[in-house]
Amino acid sequence: MATADQIRQVLERYTAAVSAGDHETAVSLFAPGATAHDPVDGPDLDAEGLGKVIAGSAAVIRAVRLTGPVRISADCRHAAAPIEADVDFGEGPQVMSVIDVMSFDDDARITSMAAYYGPANLRDA
Amino acid sequence: MATADQIRQVLERYTAAVSAGDHETAVSLFAPGATAHDPVDGPDLDAEGLGKVIAGSAAVIRAVRLTGPVRISADCRHAAAPIEADVDFGEGPQVMSVIDVMSFDDDARITSMAAYYGPANLRDA
Repeated sequence: MATADQIRQVLERYTAAVSAGDHETAVSLFAPGATAHDPVDGPDLDAEGLGKVIAGSAAVIRAVRLTGPVRISADCRHAAAPIEADVDFGEGPQVMSVIDVMSFDDDARITSMAAYYGPANLRDA
Repeated sequence: MATADQIRQVLERYTAAVSAGDHETAVSLFAPGATAHDPVDGPDLDAEGLGKVIAGSAAVIRAVRLTGPVRISADCRHAAAPIEADVDFGEGPQVMSVIDVMSFDDDARITSMAAYYGPANLRDA
């Protein structure tokens, strides 16, 4: 079983990787066969597909940070984390509030990820 | 389709109902056949079962509040919300950090709910 510290570190590494536009490190945190939805109502992705989304977002995303405790289930198979992303779609600096929801295997590899956000969560910085 | 305002109001009403120990109002927000997990790694519950969990927690929970924006997908079928619960297990006041993850039907009724938290998220107040 993974530990809560391991799960927290995966979220910290994932957030830092997306913040840096480092899609290779982000993808390396996923287990084989993992699924991803970014946004949650977007298409079914595998880790490779998610990597392309992260790479494609790099021009828009200025920074990504955790804004509160990573919630971790007692069995360390589920986590959810509040996140803010500084973004710029060419109309000046804005902030998108996001929650990433993930599941994990016994080695703390991500087996599924869904990013919860939508137009209602975008505000001027 | 539901609207983002409707989804936000459901989260506000659900949180207020749990805060008040009002399990009947909380359960009334669910669609027939809805599923619930509270915590996410706990047993499969229907809305009735969740109502019993809420009623059973009333002696421990002092207050529940949203602590940030409700994240709402563009299609208004998915939401996640950061929450804190003031609790007392008989060892003095503590705070549990929680994220509730929900899905919705076209009438903004909850079709599934999972509450993300675990022992790593409990701190002294």
